[in-house]
Amino acid sequence: MKKKVLLTGFDPFGGESVNPAWEAVKRLHGETARDISIAAEKIPTVFGKSADVLEKAIEKHQPDIIICTGQAGGRPHITPERIAINIDDARIADNEGMMPIDENIAQDGPAAYWSTLPIKRIVQTLKHNGIPASVSNSAGTFVCNHLFYRLMHHLALSSSGARGGFIHIPYLPEQTIDKKEPSLSLDVIVEALRIAALTAASHETDIREQGGSLD
Amino acid sequence: MKKKVLLTGFDPFGGESVNPAWEAVKRLHGETARDISIAAEKIPTVFGKSADVLEKAIEKHQPDIIICTGQAGGRPHITPERIAINIDDARIADNEGMMPIDENIAQDGPAAYWSTLPIKRIVQTLKHNGIPASVSNSAGTFVCNHLFYRLMHHLALSSSGARGGFIHIPYLPEQTIDKKEPSLSLDVIVEALRIAALTAASHETDIREQGGSLD
Amino acid sequence: MKKKVLLTGFDPFGGESVNPAWEAVKRLHGETARDISIAAEKIPTVFGKSADVLEKAIEKHQPDIIICTGQAGGRPHITPERIAINIDDARIADNEGMMPIDENIAQDGPAAYWSTLPIKRIVQTLKHNGIPASVSNSAGTFVCNHLFYRLMHHLALSSSGARGGFIHIPYLPEQTIDKKEPSLSLDVIVEALRIAALTAASHETDIREQGGSLD
Amino acid sequence: MKKKVLLTGFDPFGGESVNPAWEAVKRLHGETARDISIAAEKIPTVFGKSADVLEKAIEKHQPDIIICTGQAGGRPHITPERIAINIDDARIADNEGMMPIDENIAQDGPAAYWSTLPIKRIVQTLKHNGIPASVSNSAGTFVCNHLFYRLMHHLALSSSGARGGFIHIPYLPEQTIDKKEPSLSLDVIVEALRIAALTAASHETDIREQGGSLD
Repeated sequence: MKKKVLLTGFDPFGGESVNPAWEAVKRLHGETARDISIAAEKIPTVFGKSADVLEKAIEKHQPDIIICTGQAGGRPHITPERIAINIDDARIADNEGMMPIDENIAQDGPAAYWSTLPIKRIVQTLKHNGIPASVSNSAGTFVCNHLFYRLMHHLALSSSGARGGFIHIPYLPEQTIDKKEPSLSLDVIVEALRIAALTAASHETDIREQGGSLD
Repeated sequence: MKKKVLLTGFDPFGGESVNPAWEAVKRLHGETARDISIAAEKIPTVFGKSADVLEKAIEKHQPDIIICTGQAGGRPHITPERIAINIDDARIADNEGMMPIDENIAQDGPAAYWSTLPIKRIVQTLKHNGIPASVSNSAGTFVCNHLFYRLMHHLALSSSGARGGFIHIPYLPEQTIDKKEPSLSLDVIVEALRIAALTAASHETDIREQGGSLD
Repeated sequence: MKKKVLLTGFDPFGGESVNPAWEAVKRLHGETARDISIAAEKIPTVFGKSADVLEKAIEKHQPDIIICTGQAGGRPHITPERIAINIDDARIADNEGMMPIDENIAQDGPAAYWSTLPIKRIVQTLKHNGIPASVSNSAGTFVCNHLFYRLMHHLALSSSGARGGFIHIPYLPEQTIDKKEPSLSLDVIVEALRIAALTAASHETDIREQGGSLD
Repeated sequence: MKKKVLLTGFDPFGGESVNPAWEAVKRLHGETARDISIAAEKIPTVFGKSADVLEKAIEKHQPDIIICTGQAGGRPHITPERIAINIDDARIADNEGMMPIDENIAQDGPAAYWSTLPIKRIVQTLKHNGIPASVSNSAGTFVCNHLFYRLMHHLALSSSGARGGFIHIPYLPEQTIDKKEPSLSLDVIVEALRIAALTAASHETDIREQGGSLD
């Protein structure tokens, strides 16, 4: 049976001229493999509006799987996130100048939601393909976590049965020419998100594999 | 009115011969300042047992404030934790050889608990005193997070009105002679935890101050 | 007038199964562009023998430019080295089990040699091409620095007029699946070394561009 | 026989309000131990002038040992430097607005000078005392390296028989409250420089102990 995966990527923020998240997912838009089709949508890096755009995209595409992606500048690995937390705490302004501090995302929501993607399986499959990946236990408190939380809140209240989560990705090499930070090439990130999409669509359950962090 | 603060610190783990957490809190045991008294207890770095020992210590001391502390090797700052998550995912064995993977801490518990310490106020006061500090959004998935979650679960089910949370601390300098990692001197850590104890006991509410993370 | 560039890359060491240096330079072997031809040779990661193999390769190829390359695990950038120092001080054994400590490379040699490649120009050209690069002021004290020093000592005593130096490169992505370290894709590294070879062959003099380090 | 050690420390630069180097060495000024006396002098963070002030201090104190110290923000260890290189390449302006790029320090000087301090012995003694320390192979290309090179050039041309070198030290904790960088407490740095001074004055020769770097 055909499955549909919706990938989203943010537009640039924080002074960057590109966002590797959107650069990567737009290259996967329209791909089909193993009865799985991929659609991609761009999301504004704005509290609130990001989630509104996401919800409209979900309504439009009716996906079985939703994977939101965002840039985590400074991380060397592809990092599927384990948990979204119910807090906005901005260190910089978003793309419309908003900077919420310690505000709950959903007044009536739980403190946190788990990703319903098979994150350990995605990490394992990426590593088998030579792509550096590990589980992350914090998506931060900026728009990435905001969108991730809003996605999971939406799915929790929905009867669609869709599953979803968030994957953080490193800078592109060209973003790091003036900073000594790690990067991954666009083709590696594209391949990583393709693998993540296919893995998530093909497997409802996760594997039991060590992926923890001491702190 | 007199207030009582219980500080806890773990015993050494992961091949270390000291744990800065216990070294620091034991030096504060018995201190009194501004009608606030401090007691300290040592906690084994063991899933399950750590929380049992903590609960007995809470019963014994009847504290108004409980601050558990643990070593976060590699962090340069004193980091009050924002949130405890309902998962054990060990990367190394604990001190009794247990290595749970992706197991919930409390079957009936929520996905996460917020610290009920005034973490932003603690960070602000530490910085005013020249001590490097910042909020952390992840206590990891090892025994530190386990104890933190069990503490908050216990307090949520208790009618004591006590507040609590977790603070991660860096290595001591002598732990880093063979690794190029940050450290803080014991007297700085002791002063930091003294400030944290007094701040938490004196202030029920937190301040609204930026302390977020992009990812 | 036709120019010849000799690129060298080490074999794997320190428990790695590949060395990105050899993987990259072997892909450039035989390339010709703008009257510049490139040859590549593999060098053993062994004190002494590495330089003997290099000297034979120089005799065989009679290059105008010699660029030796090696893996600098943990660096996020392509880093042309500024200076080679007259010391072997091994932290691990080389591939034949030798581990010299504080031994001069050439008894009669100066304390250090400058690279005679246009390192600032190479860095500038790489950055213009979107490849993260910066000057390094230390090639370490292991076989990389050893080979670099021996190369410059050889060129200083030779009448060939050839110029040379050393470029350190990051891990490949597949080397970092079990370590949280930066990497660059092989095609980025290959393109970087192609640009370095052409830039060095086309320009005898360097540009005056900031590339220093505070410490 | 009585020995005299001259310690120098820079004034603040790069936007900092203190320099841990001067803060530390001024606390050792006037100390005497084991027939060894210590004097301390402050050095301006200025190309050229720094060395002029140093040379006058050497003339005034007639020391047997000169140890210049400077801040290496971001390093977690006390790091005796192995080698000074004959180049100024400033990434920021010095305290008088100068920013030399790729200029030799001494037209007639060698490419580099080795420290004549027993750097491995200093590192070993610091570690025995629980102080994190390691050898550094690059003092950078800013005023620290400039002063270090000028010191060694001066000693090379002098008949005094005095020995000297440079030690980089980390930030103080209070310098890192707004940046996630390592630090060491002032009392640890003071004790480290006291140990370095006594070790250098008591031992003309170094030990043979591994202290190298792969890159």
